[in-house]
Amino acid sequence: VIHLDQDANAETTRPFDLRDRGLLLADGVFDTAMVIGGAMVFRDRHVARLLNDAKAFGIDVDPARIDAAIDGVIAGLAFGSVRVTVTRGAGARGLAPVGVGRATVLASAAPGDPTRAFAPVTVVPTAIRRNETSPAARHKTLAYIDSVMAAREAAAAGADEALLLNTKGRLACCAAANVFVLAGETLTTPPLDDGAMAGVTRAWVLANAHRAGLSAAETTISPGEAARADAAFLTSSLRLIAPAGGVAAPGTPLQPPAVTRLMELLVDDLVAEGRTPPFRAPTGR
Amino acid sequence: VIHLDQDANAETTRPFDLRDRGLLLADGVFDTAMVIGGAMVFRDRHVARLLNDAKAFGIDVDPARIDAAIDGVIAGLAFGSVRVTVTRGAGARGLAPVGVGRATVLASAAPGDPTRAFAPVTVVPTAIRRNETSPAARHKTLAYIDSVMAAREAAAAGADEALLLNTKGRLACCAAANVFVLAGETLTTPPLDDGAMAGVTRAWVLANAHRAGLSAAETTISPGEAARADAAFLTSSLRLIAPAGGVAAPGTPLQPPAVTRLMELLVDDLVAEGRTPPFRAPTGR
Repeated sequence: VIHLDQDANAETTRPFDLRDRGLLLADGVFDTAMVIGGAMVFRDRHVARLLNDAKAFGIDVDPARIDAAIDGVIAGLAFGSVRVTVTRGAGARGLAPVGVGRATVLASAAPGDPTRAFAPVTVVPTAIRRNETSPAARHKTLAYIDSVMAAREAAAAGADEALLLNTKGRLACCAAANVFVLAGETLTTPPLDDGAMAGVTRAWVLANAHRAGLSAAETTISPGEAARADAAFLTSSLRLIAPAGGVAAPGTPLQPPAVTRLMELLVDDLVAEGRTPPFRAPTGR
Repeated sequence: VIHLDQDANAETTRPFDLRDRGLLLADGVFDTAMVIGGAMVFRDRHVARLLNDAKAFGIDVDPARIDAAIDGVIAGLAFGSVRVTVTRGAGARGLAPVGVGRATVLASAAPGDPTRAFAPVTVVPTAIRRNETSPAARHKTLAYIDSVMAAREAAAAGADEALLLNTKGRLACCAAANVFVLAGETLTTPPLDDGAMAGVTRAWVLANAHRAGLSAAETTISPGEAARADAAFLTSSLRLIAPAGGVAAPGTPLQPPAVTRLMELLVDDLVAEGRTPPFRAPTGR
């Protein structure tokens, strides 16, 4: 027997099996990507990451269903974002996946604000630690309540993002972004084992930093090392590369030339992929 | 634009706003309780805990809606369980709760197996730590993927439950239960700050242990202390008090007389509340 009392919007309401384990147990994974000109940016990498995340939790899903979901929502969207959610499906009550049929695939797309890309952000620390012992730290699961609360703390402090340390006191990530620090010509970002998510933009930076004259590595970072760095930025699929205030040493430039160069290279790669963005790499500041 | 591809059961499918933050971000809380003779066991305590959990995350919900949801699903259920879920509601994309209306209230009830109450369980350790720095550790949020994975590990090892340590290496709880250890005539259970949830049966044991001739306290417990204990049991609203093998010293009785006495007292309290259960306290073993 089921009772549901929800304010529902006709446009976004569909018949839904309320025993879905995504809703009841956060038993699922998701991905968010940028959409430019009706196409998903870095689509192959996003879909591969989503499938890898699903596999890590033993969730089987036919990739053709994910493609159909994406195609079903992005057509005609000039600029914005697409989110694809894959849950284990609906089943009997309890933690054990009893009576579960096929995975559930849900996608939605919405217009977005192109000025968010490359825009600088202010970052504040949060006391919520990232639990790097949990598989949910390395994979993009639906269990986002820690990030919701960390983002809420940041907003209450007048900041854009919250920096999470892991349980060992090392940098992990932000509520909805990866973090990089720049010291001299060396970029570092926390390894996945330190509680970082395998962000698509993070992977792009690691693979392409050399084109901006930087070396880049996944390295454990202490708060002290971050606070002595020359600069820091966040990466996410919607912010892309966001110069971050509040992480590196005070008084240093927010966006040194090498970071501007990275942004320009990322725009070049979007254009080369056929996704001409409605924004440019900003000049340094 | 939304695309949903889900195997749906006609009986449990309802029109649902798919922007619900419970589904997308685990941004909600829930409660599970036993139902006996069409009534919810310890209803006041369960509803109070659920309201407290919602409040901890800034989710406003009218208690009358929760009462209506429970009443709507438990009538006529001879024995089983009821689950009430409260999410922040449906809103715009992103972590910040933009454009969110009323909280969503969802309840479901299902017949259960009365032989699960007081039944002994085997417990194995898991490498997944409970993140006691997260508000989600002390409150029953929808972010249950760690428990799903821990329970899965336990099942793969042929056990019933998994014991989670916290990030400091102290006992926290099991995947879906609290844990108590008995040393002499002293019962201890991890404090909420060590990553334990405020279980209703846990609170009952803490308040009533003295009636069984035991002292009871919330105390930090190391794995070594647990391994030297005389006995251990788990508490949950459906298992009630479950003698636990695999936690205390090997070779000790699974259910010493004081634990049997606690079970009898709990049955007495259910009967005094008007909920005559279809099970008895088992004799010691």
